[in-house]
Amino acid sequence: MEKPHGLERMIFFSDAVIAIMLTLLALELPVPEGDTATALWESLSEHGAAYLAFGISFAVIAATWVAHHMLFTHVHRADPPLITLNLLALLAYVLVPWASKTLAESTGGAGVALYSAVMAFLGLSMLLVLRHVRRAGLLGPETPAAVIGGIRAWTVTTMLMFALTIPAAFFFGRPVMFVWPVVYLGLRLAAVLYTRQGRRATVEKHVEKHVE
Amino acid sequence: MEKPHGLERMIFFSDAVIAIMLTLLALELPVPEGDTATALWESLSEHGAAYLAFGISFAVIAATWVAHHMLFTHVHRADPPLITLNLLALLAYVLVPWASKTLAESTGGAGVALYSAVMAFLGLSMLLVLRHVRRAGLLGPETPAAVIGGIRAWTVTTMLMFALTIPAAFFFGRPVMFVWPVVYLGLRLAAVLYTRQGRRATVEKHVEKHVE
Amino acid sequence: MEKPHGLERMIFFSDAVIAIMLTLLALELPVPEGDTATALWESLSEHGAAYLAFGISFAVIAATWVAHHMLFTHVHRADPPLITLNLLALLAYVLVPWASKTLAESTGGAGVALYSAVMAFLGLSMLLVLRHVRRAGLLGPETPAAVIGGIRAWTVTTMLMFALTIPAAFFFGRPVMFVWPVVYLGLRLAAVLYTRQGRRATVEKHVEKHVE
Amino acid sequence: MEKPHGLERMIFFSDAVIAIMLTLLALELPVPEGDTATALWESLSEHGAAYLAFGISFAVIAATWVAHHMLFTHVHRADPPLITLNLLALLAYVLVPWASKTLAESTGGAGVALYSAVMAFLGLSMLLVLRHVRRAGLLGPETPAAVIGGIRAWTVTTMLMFALTIPAAFFFGRPVMFVWPVVYLGLRLAAVLYTRQGRRATVEKHVEKHVE
Repeated sequence: MEKPHGLERMIFFSDAVIAIMLTLLALELPVPEGDTATALWESLSEHGAAYLAFGISFAVIAATWVAHHMLFTHVHRADPPLITLNLLALLAYVLVPWASKTLAESTGGAGVALYSAVMAFLGLSMLLVLRHVRRAGLLGPETPAAVIGGIRAWTVTTMLMFALTIPAAFFFGRPVMFVWPVVYLGLRLAAVLYTRQGRRATVEKHVEKHVE
Repeated sequence: MEKPHGLERMIFFSDAVIAIMLTLLALELPVPEGDTATALWESLSEHGAAYLAFGISFAVIAATWVAHHMLFTHVHRADPPLITLNLLALLAYVLVPWASKTLAESTGGAGVALYSAVMAFLGLSMLLVLRHVRRAGLLGPETPAAVIGGIRAWTVTTMLMFALTIPAAFFFGRPVMFVWPVVYLGLRLAAVLYTRQGRRATVEKHVEKHVE
Repeated sequence: MEKPHGLERMIFFSDAVIAIMLTLLALELPVPEGDTATALWESLSEHGAAYLAFGISFAVIAATWVAHHMLFTHVHRADPPLITLNLLALLAYVLVPWASKTLAESTGGAGVALYSAVMAFLGLSMLLVLRHVRRAGLLGPETPAAVIGGIRAWTVTTMLMFALTIPAAFFFGRPVMFVWPVVYLGLRLAAVLYTRQGRRATVEKHVEKHVE
Repeated sequence: MEKPHGLERMIFFSDAVIAIMLTLLALELPVPEGDTATALWESLSEHGAAYLAFGISFAVIAATWVAHHMLFTHVHRADPPLITLNLLALLAYVLVPWASKTLAESTGGAGVALYSAVMAFLGLSMLLVLRHVRRAGLLGPETPAAVIGGIRAWTVTTMLMFALTIPAAFFFGRPVMFVWPVVYLGLRLAAVLYTRQGRRATVEKHVEKHVE
C-alpha cells in the first residue's frame, strides 16, 4: 500500500494548500468589542453573518477534505491528467476565503450567488477528479464500490445544492444561505449512512472470501 | 511502528494547520516605533497586552502541540470518528489568532472571556480525541499508561483553568489574564513530573519483562 | 526509488513554500459588491485586472510546479549547490504575490514590467536548477531525455516571453499582459506534446530492452 | 538512516513554520507605483529599506534553514528537551516577519536594535539546540565533526554580529544595517570553506577505514 513518490507529493501539496486555506478563513474574522458580557454578545451578533459564513465554509471544506482523504486512500498511482484536475480543484479551494469574505460583506444576494458559484465549482472539480481516477484505472483493486459511490453521491448533491442557490440568491436574497446548513446536515447524515453501508459491504466481501 | 497512510495524512494535516496558525499569531503584532532606546521601550510597553497575548498563545499552543505529538506517537490507526474529532480540534486551533487579537484589542473583560472560551473549547476537543483513542482501542499495545494519564491531567487542568476565567473575566476584568502564566507554569511543572514518572514506569516495566 | 532524507526535506520545503504562496495569491483579491446580478457583474468587471492577474499567476505557478514535480521525480540525490539554487527559485516564488499585486494595482506599464521581471527571474532560477542536476549527475540513470528536454523547452520559452515583455511594457503599456495567456496556451500545448513524445520514447526504450 | 516518527514530525513541523514565515516575509512588501520605467525605479528606491530588510531576512533565514537541514541530517532521535529547545527556535523564527516590518518602518536606530535582538535570539536558540544534540548523544555515530564545527562557527559568529549591532544601532543609527550584508557574505564564504573541509575530512576518514 506504499504510494509512489509523485502521488505522495501531489497529496501532500493538496493538503498543504487546504490547511493554509482553512487557517486563513479564520484570520479575517471581525474582532468583537465590549467590556461586559451583554456588549460582547451584541458585538458578536452584529457580525453574525461573518461568523456564520466562516462556520459554513469550515464545515464544507472539512467534509470535502474528508472525501478527498477517503478517495486518495484508494488511489494507487497518479498520471498527468490527475495532476491537472487536482490543480483545478486547488484553484477552487484557494478561492474559498475570498468567496467567504464576499459572502460576509455583501448585504444582498450577490454575495450568496458568488459563494455558491465557487462552491459549485469546487464540487465540479472533485467530480472530474473522481471520474478520472475511475476511468483511468488509478484506484487499487480492493477499493470498495460503496465508498466511491458514497463520495460521489455526497459530491453530486453538494454541488447541485450550491448550483441551485446561484439563481435563488437573486430571487430570495441573502436568507437563501440558511438553506445550506439544513441541507448540509441532511447530506452529512446520508454520507455517514452510505459510508457505513460501504464498510459493511467490504466486511461481507472479506468474510465471503475467507469462507470460500 | 510504521503508521498507516490515512493516519499519517491526518497527523500531517493537523501539523500544517497548527504551524500556519502559530506563524500567523506573530504576523499582526503591533510594530513599535521610536528612534531611541527609551522611545522604543515605551512603544513596546504601550502595546504590552498584545505581546503578552502572543506569548501566552504561543506557550499554550506549543504545549498543546507537544501533548498532541506525544499522544499520536502511540496512536496506531485512525477511524472516521477520530478524523471528525480531530477536525473539531483544528476548528479550535484556527480560532486562536482571532481570539488572541480580540484579547489584545479589547480593553475590558470581554476579550479575556472570549479568549478563555476558545482555549477551553480547544481543551475540550483534545479531551474528546483522547477519550476516543482509548475507548476505540486505537492506541498501540505498548503505550505507557502514565504518559496518557499525564496528557489527560494536563489537558483537564488547562481546560478547567480557562473555563473558570470565563465568568471571572466579567467580575475582575482584564487582570484575570495574569492568572494564566502563573497557573500555566505550575501545570507545566506538573506535566514534566508526570511524564518523567511515566517514562520511569515504562523503563521499570521493560526491566521486569527482561528479568522474568 | 526511495529518496534520501535531505532531498525529501528540500522537496517538502519547496512544496510548502509554493502551496502557501499559491493560497496567498487569492487572499487579497478585491471583494465585489452589489445586490443584483448586474451590479455584481459590474463590480467584478471593474476589478477585472486583479482577477486576470490572479488567473495568470495561478496558471504559471501551477505549470511551473508541475515542471518542478516532473523534474524532481527523476532527481536521486541533493548536493549543497542544488539546495542553494533551489532557495534562489524559492526567492522568486515568494515574490510572486507581491508582483501579482503590483500588476493588479499599477495602471501603467510599470506593473507589467515588474511582474515580467519576477517571472523571468523564476524561469532563470529553474533553468539553473535544471542545468545543475544534469551537470552534477543528480538525475537517476533511467531518466527519459525527452522529459528533461520538454521541461527545459517549456522553461526557456516562458522565461524568454517574460523577458521580452519587460521592455515591451514601457512601449505598449498594460495591454502587453494579454499576450501572456495567448502565448501560454501555445506553450502548454507544446509542453503536452513534448511530454507525450518523451513518454512514448521511454516506452519504446523499455520495449527495445525487453526485446533484446 | 530511517528517522523515528517523533523526530520526523518535529522536523516537518519546523519546516512548515519556516516555509510559512519565509513566504509571509514577502507578503507585506510595499507595492511600487508609476507608469514609466523612471517612476517605477523612483518608487522602488523610495521603499528601498523595506526591500533591503526583506533581502537580508530571506538570506539569513535561508542560511539558518540550511544549517538546520545539515544538522538534522545527522540527528538520529529526539528527546523532550530537544523538542522544547526547537520550539524556542521556532518562537524566534515566527518573530522574524514582525522584526523585519519594524526594521523597514522605523526610521531611527530602534528598528535595527529590535531586529538585531530577534536575530541574536534565533542564533542563541540554534546554539542551544546544537549543544543539546551533542551532549545528549542524539547525533549519529558517523557524524563528521567538521560539519558540526562549521555549523557552530557560523551560528556563533552570526549571533555575535547581531548582538553587537543592538547597542551600535543606538549610537550610529540605521546605517548599521549595511554592516550585515558585508559581514554576512564573509561568513557565508567561511561557512562554505568549513563545510568543504568537513566533507574532505569525512572522505579521508572513509578512505582510511577502507584502507585499514
